[in-house]
Amino acid sequence: MSELTHFDAAGNAIMVDVTEKKCTERIAIACGSIAMNQETFDTVRNRTAKKGDVLGVARVAGIMAAKRTWELIPMCHPLMLTKCTIDFELDEKLFKIKAIATTKVTGQTGVEMEALTAATTTLLTIYDMCKAMDRSMEISEIHLMKKDGGKSGLFERS
Amino acid sequence: MSELTHFDAAGNAIMVDVTEKKCTERIAIACGSIAMNQETFDTVRNRTAKKGDVLGVARVAGIMAAKRTWELIPMCHPLMLTKCTIDFELDEKLFKIKAIATTKVTGQTGVEMEALTAATTTLLTIYDMCKAMDRSMEISEIHLMKKDGGKSGLFERS
Amino acid sequence: MSELTHFDAAGNAIMVDVTEKKCTERIAIACGSIAMNQETFDTVRNRTAKKGDVLGVARVAGIMAAKRTWELIPMCHPLMLTKCTIDFELDEKLFKIKAIATTKVTGQTGVEMEALTAATTTLLTIYDMCKAMDRSMEISEIHLMKKDGGKSGLFERS
Amino acid sequence: MSELTHFDAAGNAIMVDVTEKKCTERIAIACGSIAMNQETFDTVRNRTAKKGDVLGVARVAGIMAAKRTWELIPMCHPLMLTKCTIDFELDEKLFKIKAIATTKVTGQTGVEMEALTAATTTLLTIYDMCKAMDRSMEISEIHLMKKDGGKSGLFERS
Amino acid sequence: MSELTHFDAAGNAIMVDVTEKKCTERIAIACGSIAMNQETFDTVRNRTAKKGDVLGVARVAGIMAAKRTWELIPMCHPLMLTKCTIDFELDEKLFKIKAIATTKVTGQTGVEMEALTAATTTLLTIYDMCKAMDRSMEISEIHLMKKDGGKSGLFERS
Amino acid sequence: MSELTHFDAAGNAIMVDVTEKKCTERIAIACGSIAMNQETFDTVRNRTAKKGDVLGVARVAGIMAAKRTWELIPMCHPLMLTKCTIDFELDEKLFKIKAIATTKVTGQTGVEMEALTAATTTLLTIYDMCKAMDRSMEISEIHLMKKDGGKSGLFERS
Repeated sequence: MSELTHFDAAGNAIMVDVTEKKCTERIAIACGSIAMNQETFDTVRNRTAKKGDVLGVARVAGIMAAKRTWELIPMCHPLMLTKCTIDFELDEKLFKIKAIATTKVTGQTGVEMEALTAATTTLLTIYDMCKAMDRSMEISEIHLMKKDGGKSGLFERS
Repeated sequence: MSELTHFDAAGNAIMVDVTEKKCTERIAIACGSIAMNQETFDTVRNRTAKKGDVLGVARVAGIMAAKRTWELIPMCHPLMLTKCTIDFELDEKLFKIKAIATTKVTGQTGVEMEALTAATTTLLTIYDMCKAMDRSMEISEIHLMKKDGGKSGLFERS
Repeated sequence: MSELTHFDAAGNAIMVDVTEKKCTERIAIACGSIAMNQETFDTVRNRTAKKGDVLGVARVAGIMAAKRTWELIPMCHPLMLTKCTIDFELDEKLFKIKAIATTKVTGQTGVEMEALTAATTTLLTIYDMCKAMDRSMEISEIHLMKKDGGKSGLFERS
Repeated sequence: MSELTHFDAAGNAIMVDVTEKKCTERIAIACGSIAMNQETFDTVRNRTAKKGDVLGVARVAGIMAAKRTWELIPMCHPLMLTKCTIDFELDEKLFKIKAIATTKVTGQTGVEMEALTAATTTLLTIYDMCKAMDRSMEISEIHLMKKDGGKSGLFERS
Repeated sequence: MSELTHFDAAGNAIMVDVTEKKCTERIAIACGSIAMNQETFDTVRNRTAKKGDVLGVARVAGIMAAKRTWELIPMCHPLMLTKCTIDFELDEKLFKIKAIATTKVTGQTGVEMEALTAATTTLLTIYDMCKAMDRSMEISEIHLMKKDGGKSGLFERS
Repeated sequence: MSELTHFDAAGNAIMVDVTEKKCTERIAIACGSIAMNQETFDTVRNRTAKKGDVLGVARVAGIMAAKRTWELIPMCHPLMLTKCTIDFELDEKLFKIKAIATTKVTGQTGVEMEALTAATTTLLTIYDMCKAMDRSMEISEIHLMKKDGGKSGLFERS
């Protein structure tokens, strides 16, 4: 049963012992997208340039959620994020908004769950603020883009 | 600027006033999927029947996150969930696990964000517990399946 | 599998559906004790009358924890406590401090977990504040003393 | 010792029993100000109209804190806010920013602590975001402007 | 008043200054038991081998609570757990379940409160999930079994 | 736009990258005051010497809030406080209570927001516990008194 590191030999869930792991600089980048109808997309895009900034509120939510990842994901270790940013890319043809979260830490465990949680919460907040206009929005393509630092080294995926 | 209900006339984000809304029984069902490689999928599936239960841990995480939705999503109203369940469907051909969250409340606002947050956190927890085997897992198809109760009435989408 | 109400027919953990339950006034009283050596007991007792009040700090911790019970206990429903008090009884012969927590709510579920969590957190806080004097303290006899309101009616145990 | 309602007859802190109180519509408005040097004030003001919106971030923080008031203030009852808004007034002569928080609930206790916590957290967030420019900023004039609903009725202060 | 380290010379509660303490590897093991009637005990034991796993849910709750110890116990320092596990021992004669929590950290303070909080929350969760079958369950024998690391060195108690 | 460090070049709010900053010992002292009518002031003062200790409860609230500063202030980094104390000064002529919070950490960012949040929450708790006697209390003069450690060095203000 050694494949799943979050369980002991008897199959019990554990918060893995990382006491002996080296404290190194670690980075993770994760992203995800939300697709909406054209009217909603246009409303969000037009407002980012002025007041009523949906993406501004969603960014704050994503950053705040990143810091609380270990409260939400049961076997995640608590860690002290040293950086969190959220960037957006707007796909004007497919009416999709992509959220890209970057997280860093100097610690004993990686920050990929923090990046994934930040991206996801950002997208859920966009959903919440736009749901009165479009209840059929769909969140998808949530994945890890890059991870570096620690024993497993560099991982990259476009 | 009336389309986006989470902003006032001046474009400031607000937690909408629902004081006058009726207290009714409300339900929401939301889902999402995580795709993984065959080896990881088989490991998760085989363990659900015995010890080392990835889906069991993920279900607990999803239910606990549902209750804290209003802490994560800035403009969500606090509410007292009266039900939350998480069900899984395993797609043996595409190596995907679908999480379906059902939430209920008797209150003044809907519970779709709670269902979406529950489904999403469930999937993020699966990612966390399996990431040592497969870092390329992707979470997608997160959407509202059904919503009922309140002024806007029934919404359904397969 | 009907005996354990926190699981569905398939054995999955659930937050039970209480949507249809009546909103009634409910009360619970729970208690527990911490035993310590005489020197520590005397120090705590002497300070309750003046500054350096261990029991005063522990009481605040217990009341604050009661409000967060549903964040800690996975299948607990969120609820809005309408009362929480912590009382102490000092056993001068056995060097034990008993914490008694009373909780009330007008709601669809009982508040026994809130009373138990309040009593327990109170005792853990006493442990924390006294552990430099006595690491062998023991917390015991945590149980529900009384419960009333709701379908199951009155329960009492001395 | 009847003057301080948050203590029992023996002087122990309590979360007051409100089980018997009527469920009524309640509103509170509270405010506070932060004074800064002219350069910082001008920077904040100029950015509210475009990107880099200090006040937008502070507003989100204030609304989120309002919902968690009962986690911070020990004897506060948990309650389900039905409205929270934050408005700003800029004093161009004194280089002060005033934050005004409005909170509502239909419940058994008032929402003045929620309004005060919202206003205060909003101002602390402005401090945080501007402290690299001016460490001598001062937060003051935090008070309740209006309160209505419940047994004690209307309170107003300019 | 030097015996109780969590108070200053004037008797005021303080979060002790540990800034100067060495960062060392620390471990703590704590346990506690819950006694129940035979029918409930048999139900819990029989389910641990299959679906409807009470102990699996309780273990997740205990691990998650360990990470939030400093939020619950007022004078506890925040720290970044590097390990948390929960093991169970079933006493088939006395119908008791013993929960044993092990916590580790590399830090300036010990992790005994984390181990005690983990064990206690695990037991409270068992109570919650079984209370429909037996309201007279009792939690007891909560104590520190072992502590090592830091200036005070090794402590052991069976 | 370089003046406000909490925004990137495009004006997006960010949690600043401190990964490269040195881990140094940092201290901050912040204070604030609450003014009340004479009767309320006398009640609070007389009780601090015995049971019914308003300031004791407020101190606990302040210390607990300090640890959660990064949950409340969106762009604050999580950090592990190594010290937090709250002291009071009573102004018998102006009927004001001053709360002084001292915080320390060995880390990559300063602790001034923690000190300010601790002082503010302490004052809000005093407000809460006295509001039945005086709804016109005002909190003011919240400012940083001292800060040391880190690149920006010593800051002092009386």
